[in-house]
Amino acid sequence: MNTQATVAIAPRLLNGLNVDAAMTTIQAIQNDPEIAQFQFRARNRWIDGGENRSTVKDFYGAKAEDMSRTETWEFTNGEPPILLGKNEGANPVEFLLHALAGCVTTTFVLHAIARGIAIHSLSTELEGDIDLHGLLGLNEDIPAGYREIRVKMHVEADCSDEALEDLLAFAQAHSPVCNTICRPVPVKIERAE
Amino acid sequence: MNTQATVAIAPRLLNGLNVDAAMTTIQAIQNDPEIAQFQFRARNRWIDGGENRSTVKDFYGAKAEDMSRTETWEFTNGEPPILLGKNEGANPVEFLLHALAGCVTTTFVLHAIARGIAIHSLSTELEGDIDLHGLLGLNEDIPAGYREIRVKMHVEADCSDEALEDLLAFAQAHSPVCNTICRPVPVKIERAE
Repeated sequence: MNTQATVAIAPRLLNGLNVDAAMTTIQAIQNDPEIAQFQFRARNRWIDGGENRSTVKDFYGAKAEDMSRTETWEFTNGEPPILLGKNEGANPVEFLLHALAGCVTTTFVLHAIARGIAIHSLSTELEGDIDLHGLLGLNEDIPAGYREIRVKMHVEADCSDEALEDLLAFAQAHSPVCNTICRPVPVKIERAE
Repeated sequence: MNTQATVAIAPRLLNGLNVDAAMTTIQAIQNDPEIAQFQFRARNRWIDGGENRSTVKDFYGAKAEDMSRTETWEFTNGEPPILLGKNEGANPVEFLLHALAGCVTTTFVLHAIARGIAIHSLSTELEGDIDLHGLLGLNEDIPAGYREIRVKMHVEADCSDEALEDLLAFAQAHSPVCNTICRPVPVKIERAE
């Protein structure tokens, strides 16, 4: 048996990610920047009161519509009774925290493989402060959104504390959701004909 | 039968929201601004590769920990194969669109009741552009997050087009998630001891 050939075929995994596929993607983007252009989408329908539901499936990336997904995911926004709802689901500002947690985590794990760092465990706790004066239009000096979001990360990995701190700073700066929150991103809303 | 008493007890609903409860909340906040201070939370755990899972349940608001929720919601972030995952779930930037869709919708529906506008139907389609050069750290001039997010809203309501446009502009300016995206919001990430 040719063990060398077996080694060459098995994907090199680190943190559950295929290291060679990651390197191939980076090489492909460097050869053709258009491959890096992605468009993500969601559709949402109001049900009643504070309840509404999104579906997520299709997206565009690497110069083509994605065809890999067979499932359409559905997510329900709701509100607690104190915010006039019936706990039909988590509310939108909580989903935002879920998105942020996931994005910082995935960005951290992805850039760990570029540095050869194996991560053993990783979890986060998030909290964010909102003053309802903003949402309710009771005080135009108070922003409607989060005043600040705090993320506490528990991580165990096979590297020094210094290397972890450096990786964390890099992940924070390169996480798409974190960047969308930290930076002013234009949202254009218009009525359909 | 005293029909007047029956009318007084039945909640006045508009767009599925209790109008009197909304007015009572606003009055309470005007009497005691501390009632408007909320803190929302999420916890997330990395599973493997691009998969991680959040739980959402508790929050603080109106000067107390909320006790209304019996269910803990779980949401799974994943990535498509082209982004090194196995379609374990929608990805974080898609969850962000879900959060934005829901928040603009709920803010729209909420402020419609303040204006006495009955909404018959409301749905949105969202799309946002991301250039992977940012996430991958291949070009520090390209932001990691969304370049722009577009929301197309289909709405039918018992008011003029002008009134709808005005309500839409107000909802956009007062939606907590929309405001968090449009405005630079500080995200503080630190490692737990």
